Amino acid sequence: MPIKTVEENRRGFAIAMFPALKLDALLVTSLHNVRYLTGFTGSNGSVLLSGDGRATLFTDPRYTVQSGQQVNCRVRIVKGPLGAAVMQEIDRGAPRRVGFEQDNVTVAHLESMKKTLPVRTQLEPVAGVIERLRMVKDAGEIARIRASVTANSRALEDALKRFRAGMTESELAAEIDYRNRKLGAEAPAFDTIVAAGARAALPHARPGATKIGPGILLIDMGAFRDGYASDMTRMAYVGPATPKYKRAYRAVLEAQLAAIDAVKPGATTGAVDRAARGTLKRHGLEREFVHSTGHGLGLEIHEQPRIGRKDKTKLEAGMAITVEPGIYMEGWGGIRIEDTVLVTPNGCEILTPTTKELREI
Amino acid sequence: MPIKTVEENRRGFAIAMFPALKLDALLVTSLHNVRYLTGFTGSNGSVLLSGDGRATLFTDPRYTVQSGQQVNCRVRIVKGPLGAAVMQEIDRGAPRRVGFEQDNVTVAHLESMKKTLPVRTQLEPVAGVIERLRMVKDAGEIARIRASVTANSRALEDALKRFRAGMTESELAAEIDYRNRKLGAEAPAFDTIVAAGARAALPHARPGATKIGPGILLIDMGAFRDGYASDMTRMAYVGPATPKYKRAYRAVLEAQLAAIDAVKPGATTGAVDRAARGTLKRHGLEREFVHSTGHGLGLEIHEQPRIGRKDKTKLEAGMAITVEPGIYMEGWGGIRIEDTVLVTPNGCEILTPTTKELREI
Repeated sequence: MPIKTVEENRRGFAIAMFPALKLDALLVTSLHNVRYLTGFTGSNGSVLLSGDGRATLFTDPRYTVQSGQQVNCRVRIVKGPLGAAVMQEIDRGAPRRVGFEQDNVTVAHLESMKKTLPVRTQLEPVAGVIERLRMVKDAGEIARIRASVTANSRALEDALKRFRAGMTESELAAEIDYRNRKLGAEAPAFDTIVAAGARAALPHARPGATKIGPGILLIDMGAFRDGYASDMTRMAYVGPATPKYKRAYRAVLEAQLAAIDAVKPGATTGAVDRAARGTLKRHGLEREFVHSTGHGLGLEIHEQPRIGRKDKTKLEAGMAITVEPGIYMEGWGGIRIEDTVLVTPNGCEILTPTTKELREI
Repeated sequence: MPIKTVEENRRGFAIAMFPALKLDALLVTSLHNVRYLTGFTGSNGSVLLSGDGRATLFTDPRYTVQSGQQVNCRVRIVKGPLGAAVMQEIDRGAPRRVGFEQDNVTVAHLESMKKTLPVRTQLEPVAGVIERLRMVKDAGEIARIRASVTANSRALEDALKRFRAGMTESELAAEIDYRNRKLGAEAPAFDTIVAAGARAALPHARPGATKIGPGILLIDMGAFRDGYASDMTRMAYVGPATPKYKRAYRAVLEAQLAAIDAVKPGATTGAVDRAARGTLKRHGLEREFVHSTGHGLGLEIHEQPRIGRKDKTKLEAGMAITVEPGIYMEGWGGIRIEDTVLVTPNGCEILTPTTKELREI
């Protein structure tokens, strides 16, 4: 019997959920999910999974050659909108209940599909079906995330070597993105954050014309490499750090390490968040921690599970998450420390190799 | 009487359309439209426009400071999903018919809004309301697009100075993105295309490990600068160009110039497309032109109007569009030439300053 490919196995897992979901077929329109199930990386594609095990990828003529190289299921090349061809295919197989991804399909898209929907077929909204599978990474995905995280850390060191006093936030951000690209990344995983001085008080600051230093420097960076994301935040102090900065840095680092200590199979994501939050509370800094502790990452920079105070997802070996508590004080600045962490059978492994020692540059 | 800001005027134009749309209010969820109507650049925000002229921006605590600085309408900072707060606000104003953007709102989002929708209010799907306003750019937008296009052209020259034989497609793409960032761009406007040799036959080629030259080199590049996009495609031939390349290049350039000649107020976008297509037909190359002639650009890289064979939008002064015919031959390569063009009261202005002389490098 031929060995199944990773994508065939993933499709098998998805189809195995159909009875519980009361589905005869599932239309997958999220491009991340399409890539996960077929390997296809084009910008236009949908997959129809049937309960009998068949899968069909629909895409357009720009991707005739590429889909043939990437995909090991049936491919239909469609001129114009894919929806009508999907409906034809549904008409052929005659499934009664076809799930669609309600967090991806827009109201306009659903209405247009309904126009050619076979009468005996119902479209059923489903949520998070493939995303649930994607939460637990397989060996190939873990290797890719590890490579992405390692290269991202190297890009930070390469960029900091080129740092000089008077450089602006956006110049350093450009340097970081360039270094990641030179190391083989396809694209930044999100808009790189370089925030200097009091601007570090904005958790999502956009790099601007502000000159860096002396003072606080917050860098939050990540890249897609071979499709998989990395995500890291590190702090530096330009010049000698003040006692207040040192105290705050130690508090955030203590919180981050406490959260990482809580990462293990069976623990809830809420418990990880509360470990960080409790530590900051003991330092009188809980009100300065205005976001959640982290998130899953993989083909997307933000995936399930969410690591927030009230989240109840149980961690499993193979999940890749960020742990990133932070504090923000208007007029002063902010501190965030973030690693990418892999849940292992016995606890977790910090994938990010970059030092968390207090760094003065 | 105080002078109205640009954003106030835009909101006024939107609200003036409510009677024709039979709306009492409009919920704007597309972040590009939110930015257009308020100036807010955060990653999470919705705007409720009321027929009585009021506007409220909803966002989360990460953007408390930023929204205060950017926005000149009411702001509500919301913890958790914005939808519930929007529904509260709707309950207060009691509009009967509230439009929502059907090309932006997902099925899941609509269902969640319906759960807390006041009984006397109806949600009505609308399409392209704000996008129609955005088609015609005002003076500030034109200045931003011009600056974006000018810097993008300079980035190409800066990157080509660093070109050397044996460089890979992805290395040159990284260099292009870096140069754009150094010149003040926030981000690439799309994944930069650098396609060498026969790979130029793929209209959406991703830069890879292919070494560049001798032969065809296609570069399609653009960046967001101060929020506004640029978009340009240029060709180069590494080494002395072949007679076949020269003939094909001249045909595409002739088609591009013919299309630009057709750009003037009152002309349809279809006429612009047909001007390019007709020229290529005379050269026996119409079947090699597999896409449309161009698209609007602004806060997004692809905006209305579309410049395709059957499109009927009438051009108006202030529209910014791309003109980019191309031909693609499997096994040989492809040629595309693209400028960003502004429709003026008397015709048009080519914003892209880069030469279209046949370039050998």
